[in-house]
Amino acid sequence: MTSIRDEPGLRSETIRRANLSSIVRVLHADGPATRSRLVARTGLTRSAIRGLTGELVAGGLVREGRAAPLGTPGRPSPLVFPQPRGAVVLALDIEVDSLAAAYIGLGGEVLEHVRVDRPRGHSSLVDVVDDLAGLAAVVADRRPDPFTTVGIGVAIPGIVRRADGLVSVAPNLGWRDEPLGDQLVRVLGDDLPISVANEADLAVLAESRRGAAVGADHVLFVSGEVGVGGGLIVEGRPFTGVAGYGGEVGHLPVNPAGQVCSCGAIGCWETEVGAMALLRRAGRNPAGGRAEMDALLADAAAGSAAVLAALEETGRWLGLGLAGLLNVLNPRLVVFGGLFQRIHPWVASIVEAELDRRALSAPRRPVRVVAGSLGDEAPLIGAAELAFEPVLADPARWLHGSIDRARNQAKLTDRRVVA
Amino acid sequence: MTSIRDEPGLRSETIRRANLSSIVRVLHADGPATRSRLVARTGLTRSAIRGLTGELVAGGLVREGRAAPLGTPGRPSPLVFPQPRGAVVLALDIEVDSLAAAYIGLGGEVLEHVRVDRPRGHSSLVDVVDDLAGLAAVVADRRPDPFTTVGIGVAIPGIVRRADGLVSVAPNLGWRDEPLGDQLVRVLGDDLPISVANEADLAVLAESRRGAAVGADHVLFVSGEVGVGGGLIVEGRPFTGVAGYGGEVGHLPVNPAGQVCSCGAIGCWETEVGAMALLRRAGRNPAGGRAEMDALLADAAAGSAAVLAALEETGRWLGLGLAGLLNVLNPRLVVFGGLFQRIHPWVASIVEAELDRRALSAPRRPVRVVAGSLGDEAPLIGAAELAFEPVLADPARWLHGSIDRARNQAKLTDRRVVA
Repeated sequence: MTSIRDEPGLRSETIRRANLSSIVRVLHADGPATRSRLVARTGLTRSAIRGLTGELVAGGLVREGRAAPLGTPGRPSPLVFPQPRGAVVLALDIEVDSLAAAYIGLGGEVLEHVRVDRPRGHSSLVDVVDDLAGLAAVVADRRPDPFTTVGIGVAIPGIVRRADGLVSVAPNLGWRDEPLGDQLVRVLGDDLPISVANEADLAVLAESRRGAAVGADHVLFVSGEVGVGGGLIVEGRPFTGVAGYGGEVGHLPVNPAGQVCSCGAIGCWETEVGAMALLRRAGRNPAGGRAEMDALLADAAAGSAAVLAALEETGRWLGLGLAGLLNVLNPRLVVFGGLFQRIHPWVASIVEAELDRRALSAPRRPVRVVAGSLGDEAPLIGAAELAFEPVLADPARWLHGSIDRARNQAKLTDRRVVA
Repeated sequence: MTSIRDEPGLRSETIRRANLSSIVRVLHADGPATRSRLVARTGLTRSAIRGLTGELVAGGLVREGRAAPLGTPGRPSPLVFPQPRGAVVLALDIEVDSLAAAYIGLGGEVLEHVRVDRPRGHSSLVDVVDDLAGLAAVVADRRPDPFTTVGIGVAIPGIVRRADGLVSVAPNLGWRDEPLGDQLVRVLGDDLPISVANEADLAVLAESRRGAAVGADHVLFVSGEVGVGGGLIVEGRPFTGVAGYGGEVGHLPVNPAGQVCSCGAIGCWETEVGAMALLRRAGRNPAGGRAEMDALLADAAAGSAAVLAALEETGRWLGLGLAGLLNVLNPRLVVFGGLFQRIHPWVASIVEAELDRRALSAPRRPVRVVAGSLGDEAPLIGAAELAFEPVLADPARWLHGSIDRARNQAKLTDRRVVA
């Protein structure tokens, strides 16, 4: 956590804002902390922590309290808590077969959440955007208390230009060059910042902040559903290539004699390890969706030989492609998300054996392969983290804007549709 | 180029060293510059440039002079030149079929250079190290004037731990866990810093500082010989994965029905695009080495249908693997090195067509694929850049150490062997 200690030559307002940011980032990431812990994590003095925390309390972003005593003698240490309702984001998640909306508060508390199935296959941009607006209205209606929304984050299974949320291509939705960001502004308003990003990039962000990859600095996240996405954290920061289009590990060519991929090429990795390949290998309907996969995994748990053989074959292809990615990217930790998280218990040893056989020993040795811990909601949680970024970067802006924000919130609620 | 402007709160000695570094980096990278250009590139004031340049002149790292007039009226602007002999590095390059040594001066001037063939195939670490010491003595003997050596950089076709130069694996040399760094210290002495790195990582460094990739911030370098290496520049900095083991693009799995690779796996990319595959496809001796490849390319230039077909097949595999790398890494520029640079004229259009067919449009659109401009010497030049890094990072240390450095130089020369 970087903070700036008082240096006479730097402007004090800049310092104050950076230091407020340091404190809010620690509380958002780690949860309640004693002042001593804030001193240790930010490098600020105890008196600076006291003053800045006071400002954040007055501005509604944090509160102070005492932890319950834990059997140790003496008064419990005073704790600083993030105030979830002090800054709330709306997170939206577009999956191939479902849509979700959630309000998530500072510190990561999920205040409201709804996920609905949608028919698999292609939908128009306008339909998806209207459905998302409907879900946003549902969670807005459920709020027991008023709170202030500070931003909107959106996850999508496609390739996105971060600057304006243009979806360059989302093969499994049938989208190409669709202005998702602009359309969301149309229905959700332009008063709140809207950020759109690839679901796998957001899932790795979520797992690295709140899941299986906390504290790891070189993380490769590989997530399977119908398509396969990847996200990479390098030295603690997301790596997205020159224009945010990197990480499309599903489209590594692994089998020149393989199936035609949704991208048009032949033998991409996702044609061998995606949900449809597993369903096909197990003799099930490849287009059967979530229910069909649930049934397949139930059969696996019951010991079905055909399903276990299908999982083994998928595990071998999973290990083969992953070996190539280790050789190129040399991550410390690989996190399996989505379908791969669900099948991890069955494929883990097969993947490890394939890595032993195929990866170079230098990148092979240090790597650990684990299942993610956030499940299907990792992209949604990552979308919230994305939307929090402006608040974390400069919380001072959010201490004195409650009137404007309340107005935005009212607008958002008024746009609700029947759902 | 980052420099630090005077801020009263920061320690002046730290500032002075950082600013000397900024100036030396600009001169080393760009060559002679007017003071106005140094002002523009470093953000320092004209008077600061004057004072710091004076220090560097006195310390022997730069000199001042006037450019020849170019027909414009008035006196030519005074220029600041890097002083090649003020700081010289010894660069060593271990290739599968040759060894090279060079003295390279500040600013990149090659002062002495020698390359000798070596038998292809496995050699012991001790033999290679002794041969390198012999070559180092040859170039040391040739020096017309004395100069001061400030570091040693070494390129190797293998996976290296940067911290100590341990070669984890170099399949085409038959090495595994060989302590190259320690052995070089044994024969070249421990008075000079010795840095060892992968040849492809160094080639991309060289192409990005002095070759086809100057100014590009997301560069993928792909270099073919017997093995295939890759190097990546992300936001202007080398990307090497968690422990310096990244970039092994030659070991992406592309063909489950393919050949056994030197790494033990089946169907790695280098089994389809490496030198031996091209020689085999053209009906030549795959183990024939450099002479056999020269003959093959002469036949291609003469229009041999068999050779052109072999090049076309290699170009298709080159495009296939590269498409996967674009999807994962989303570089702005791809630079072909080594053999790929030599065959670029024949395979360029086939590679482009394969990228059109196989890569996702978002990462495909912005990318340019070009031949490198430094040829076989790119790794050697990159090794020199690596060895210069301590001088560039803190030139102040090298302004007042000439006696020690002269002693080191004498030691190095005394260790020469007959060659």
